[in-house]
Amino acid sequence: MAITTIEDLFIHELSDIYSAEKQLTKALPHLARASSSPDLAGAFESHLEETRGQVERIDEIVEILGVRLKRMKCAAMEGLVEEGKEVIDEIEKGPLRDVALIGGGNRVEHYEIAGYGTLIALANQLGYAKAVPLLQATLKEEKAADEKLTLLAEQLGKQQSAERA
Amino acid sequence: MAITTIEDLFIHELSDIYSAEKQLTKALPHLARASSSPDLAGAFESHLEETRGQVERIDEIVEILGVRLKRMKCAAMEGLVEEGKEVIDEIEKGPLRDVALIGGGNRVEHYEIAGYGTLIALANQLGYAKAVPLLQATLKEEKAADEKLTLLAEQLGKQQSAERA
Repeated sequence: MAITTIEDLFIHELSDIYSAEKQLTKALPHLARASSSPDLAGAFESHLEETRGQVERIDEIVEILGVRLKRMKCAAMEGLVEEGKEVIDEIEKGPLRDVALIGGGNRVEHYEIAGYGTLIALANQLGYAKAVPLLQATLKEEKAADEKLTLLAEQLGKQQSAERA
Repeated sequence: MAITTIEDLFIHELSDIYSAEKQLTKALPHLARASSSPDLAGAFESHLEETRGQVERIDEIVEILGVRLKRMKCAAMEGLVEEGKEVIDEIEKGPLRDVALIGGGNRVEHYEIAGYGTLIALANQLGYAKAVPLLQATLKEEKAADEKLTLLAEQLGKQQSAERA
């Protein structure tokens, strides 16, 4: 029974997403190398830069609030990364693997969209006025990354259909 | 290298979400019992009914297409369910646990929103005209479930703030 206040819950959720972002900074270079489309590789690489910035934002929030994060490993992101590895194992490098990697990327972004949504609600409830805009900035980036991936999937899909025709 | 065509990828993704839905039908009754708010318990229970219907839709797609699903366990949903158990272990039954359960519920819905989004894109590309509306019906339900949870979180947050004041 370690969590007894909304403050505790905020720290728990922030620690979870911190672990998720850290795992992602390790996974994204593999995803970029596993991509055949240069656009997709570029999207993963630029999201790596963004993710590093998002980790820094969490560090900033921790400093502003004068709190400590819990050492924990986000189990959901572990599963998402594992699914990405499965895709790489089961599909040869090429347009099909790219489509599957994008599907995995969308899931990752949605995990984070939900996570930051919860954090913003909690921060608002707690009156953490300085944390809210930092969390909102990250949420905006995650939504944009999700849309960018979806757009790339559509383009790759059209290319493949044209090649099959 | 088991996946070599878009058809294979569609089956892979459908099998993943099938496993996710099946795991969820097992987890939702626990989540309902772990909730203190009757509204939240009711939301989990009614989503259980919906989820059973979503499993049936997948069965229907499998029948229409005359395909076989792969036996696999969705690793991401495994992680999401594990995180739900952590919440139940670490937070006493009450409004705070409810807020945390909602956060987990939002993550689950977002996983599924991303998953069905990918499936719809693939089904469109493959010309699976009968599968598309079935997948879209489920996607609509997942989005509505996500919104319902977010609304409940806001209501519970307001109640808690009023009680703290």
